[in-house]
Amino acid sequence: MLFHVEMEVRLPVDMPASQADALKQAERELAQALQRSGQWRHLWRIAGRYANVSVFDVESIDELHRLLTSLPLFPFMKIGVTPLCRHPSSIHDDDR
Amino acid sequence: MLFHVEMEVRLPVDMPASQADALKQAERELAQALQRSGQWRHLWRIAGRYANVSVFDVESIDELHRLLTSLPLFPFMKIGVTPLCRHPSSIHDDDR
Amino acid sequence: MLFHVEMEVRLPVDMPASQADALKQAERELAQALQRSGQWRHLWRIAGRYANVSVFDVESIDELHRLLTSLPLFPFMKIGVTPLCRHPSSIHDDDR
Amino acid sequence: MLFHVEMEVRLPVDMPASQADALKQAERELAQALQRSGQWRHLWRIAGRYANVSVFDVESIDELHRLLTSLPLFPFMKIGVTPLCRHPSSIHDDDR
Amino acid sequence: MLFHVEMEVRLPVDMPASQADALKQAERELAQALQRSGQWRHLWRIAGRYANVSVFDVESIDELHRLLTSLPLFPFMKIGVTPLCRHPSSIHDDDR
Amino acid sequence: MLFHVEMEVRLPVDMPASQADALKQAERELAQALQRSGQWRHLWRIAGRYANVSVFDVESIDELHRLLTSLPLFPFMKIGVTPLCRHPSSIHDDDR
Amino acid sequence: MLFHVEMEVRLPVDMPASQADALKQAERELAQALQRSGQWRHLWRIAGRYANVSVFDVESIDELHRLLTSLPLFPFMKIGVTPLCRHPSSIHDDDR
Amino acid sequence: MLFHVEMEVRLPVDMPASQADALKQAERELAQALQRSGQWRHLWRIAGRYANVSVFDVESIDELHRLLTSLPLFPFMKIGVTPLCRHPSSIHDDDR
Amino acid sequence: MLFHVEMEVRLPVDMPASQADALKQAERELAQALQRSGQWRHLWRIAGRYANVSVFDVESIDELHRLLTSLPLFPFMKIGVTPLCRHPSSIHDDDR
Amino acid sequence: MLFHVEMEVRLPVDMPASQADALKQAERELAQALQRSGQWRHLWRIAGRYANVSVFDVESIDELHRLLTSLPLFPFMKIGVTPLCRHPSSIHDDDR
Repeated sequence: MLFHVEMEVRLPVDMPASQADALKQAERELAQALQRSGQWRHLWRIAGRYANVSVFDVESIDELHRLLTSLPLFPFMKIGVTPLCRHPSSIHDDDR
Repeated sequence: MLFHVEMEVRLPVDMPASQADALKQAERELAQALQRSGQWRHLWRIAGRYANVSVFDVESIDELHRLLTSLPLFPFMKIGVTPLCRHPSSIHDDDR
Repeated sequence: MLFHVEMEVRLPVDMPASQADALKQAERELAQALQRSGQWRHLWRIAGRYANVSVFDVESIDELHRLLTSLPLFPFMKIGVTPLCRHPSSIHDDDR
Repeated sequence: MLFHVEMEVRLPVDMPASQADALKQAERELAQALQRSGQWRHLWRIAGRYANVSVFDVESIDELHRLLTSLPLFPFMKIGVTPLCRHPSSIHDDDR
Repeated sequence: MLFHVEMEVRLPVDMPASQADALKQAERELAQALQRSGQWRHLWRIAGRYANVSVFDVESIDELHRLLTSLPLFPFMKIGVTPLCRHPSSIHDDDR
Repeated sequence: MLFHVEMEVRLPVDMPASQADALKQAERELAQALQRSGQWRHLWRIAGRYANVSVFDVESIDELHRLLTSLPLFPFMKIGVTPLCRHPSSIHDDDR
Repeated sequence: MLFHVEMEVRLPVDMPASQADALKQAERELAQALQRSGQWRHLWRIAGRYANVSVFDVESIDELHRLLTSLPLFPFMKIGVTPLCRHPSSIHDDDR
Repeated sequence: MLFHVEMEVRLPVDMPASQADALKQAERELAQALQRSGQWRHLWRIAGRYANVSVFDVESIDELHRLLTSLPLFPFMKIGVTPLCRHPSSIHDDDR
Repeated sequence: MLFHVEMEVRLPVDMPASQADALKQAERELAQALQRSGQWRHLWRIAGRYANVSVFDVESIDELHRLLTSLPLFPFMKIGVTPLCRHPSSIHDDDR
Repeated sequence: MLFHVEMEVRLPVDMPASQADALKQAERELAQALQRSGQWRHLWRIAGRYANVSVFDVESIDELHRLLTSLPLFPFMKIGVTPLCRHPSSIHDDDR
């Protein structure tokens, strides 16, 4: 099932660059693994902000929560979750 | 290029059912045509609300505006538009 | 799976009392049927407001959406949906 | 009587892990004791956030206030309290 | 126990004066009866607005809800309820 | 004349306990002196929050401002002030 | 004593012009009388809006409330009231 | 021309008292000089808050910006600016 | 001098098309005349909304207010005004 | 294509002046280069705030994002982006 997730990252301005880089690299690796597994179905950058719009495809709400809280940047993110369902006018078979 | 669009519909409570049905039918036909053309790339219903989350794929901002204002339900919708760009961690080649 | 739902009802002040009563009676019957089926797991009134806090237990987001949009008062409600998951400190086995 | 309580935790990003762990462990023990006593009637995690939705069942508002302010994480929480009462359509005898 | 209640009245601008007057007169009579019974403990007008700040003293949340929803102006009011408890610095014995 | 005042306290999480205790003790002593003088007419704790709802009875707006800014916790408080006047339905002679 | 008052007028779009004109003329006459009496000390139009910023100079909060609620446009206004006091850096003797 | 300006000051809680005093003294001197020159036409304290409501009378928007950004407390203030014009019901010749 | 103005139009859904068309035609003619005179310096449509972002170049705040309130759609618009000044990094000589 | 961008800068109050000056100087140089290239089409200061209103003219949303995130002050800015299109009443040929 699908969830719309908006994430905004706010790193402390005094975080050392090396720590920030390590966090971002770990975040990228996990994000790409979750995209390959199909759980992180869509991932877009919001223009002009350190934020993204995502769609997750998971088996349960618990799975969604585990994925989001496992993100290395989770402690620095503000997250909003919106449950989605198939739109009656959708023509895409796999939009659940 | 991609735009995230959230639409919420508010029909007047005293609109005759026949008028509402005709509007919704016309809306559905146009929504499906725009999905087939690839301009209305994603369309999901937000659970529990008469609202949707969409992603449009258009050549210009003017094209986006023409599409949205041509929707039969446009006069009854509150619309929010957010420009999207490719996320550096995206693995999907066609996410622009 | 569980969803926290807050509903606020706003009937038009000029709705005839007979129409309002019929809507409320139909709403009550459906609400009680959904409680008996276990889908509408909790239902409380918010003190001082024509509003409720509810917890739904459904198989899918689509099922939640169908239930909410089938409510007779749906056209007159403002609804907010929040996905819930089991809290790591919960001692209740059936809290999912 | 029942109160709906939403709690959001915001630990300082520079809190040492050992201090955070100790706080969370103490919080969990008290939360479980209060669930066993029946005062913390429901406890769910909000998906994607370090936050919970709870229902407390207490004898008085003072008791509620004492419980909430005794939580080890209280200094780091934003809390909203909403008084609940029995819904006229509820079929559950113990929903007060 | 005590609840802080803020009420704002919004009568439709096209309500006949006779209907508004009858509502206000019935509201006043009930408000004064509830003050005499001690349930409506404080009642102040907010300067410049058709609104009041009140403190209710009731045995239960259900009693509070019954009182508020029995007010003749209830269908035209926006109401906010905040539970109060004794302040540790209060010197007034009857502030609960 | 009467003013409704809501105060919310936010102490820095790293303030030493001894400093916090001294501030709170000084605050309590002044709050009790102002209650005895009749200027701080009502004082209630808002359940679940480090906040209060108060009613002040002062001769002038300047007097109100001097009292509030003399509170030891003033630099750590967010304060909202609402002027009150006698409600036409009030039965209490001393509600101004 | 001084109160900062912001008023925004929202006339129904279907109010007959003659009724609107009569209301505005009555409002103007009262506003000018209250300026001459010194009670409506300042009155400015907010650019681009049917709204004003005002400063009232009254003997009591009750007097302020009576003046505001006696305005012919009061039923169509949203009003915000802020109590003012003399600023310690003010050089104007009559700013209270 | 006239601008309504609301300023709220937020000094860091750990600023040394001597630095705060020096800033406030410099602010007062400039505020009084600008009142004497007629550019800072009105200055009131908002009761209960470290904030003021002001009216500036300047030749241009650039002049207003230069004045506000030259204030010693500017880096610690949140400022809102609203352009004012003469109200058609004003009887004061010099209200522009 | 320059003012940033955002206008959002909300026509009643039951306004006859002929009346709406006449209003829009009159609005267009005035908007174009004000652009030719240089007073309405910029005018853009906000994508997906019946709203615009504009920059006005006027001699005084009164002139701005007269222009905005003379617009045929003014009674149906929500307007926000922000005063602008030359940016120190601007390279455009005529940006005031 | 055109995007309306509002940027608000919030430098930490304890940033050394030399670091702030270096950031501002680098920001100015890039801002002027982007104005000369035509990508940063308009740039105005918002009166009384450390903020600007800008219009960017770019080939793609990605280009906009790259420009904004390359600004030296980007880590200290809150940014809002609104897509613009040609207004049907515009008389300016180059407003896209």
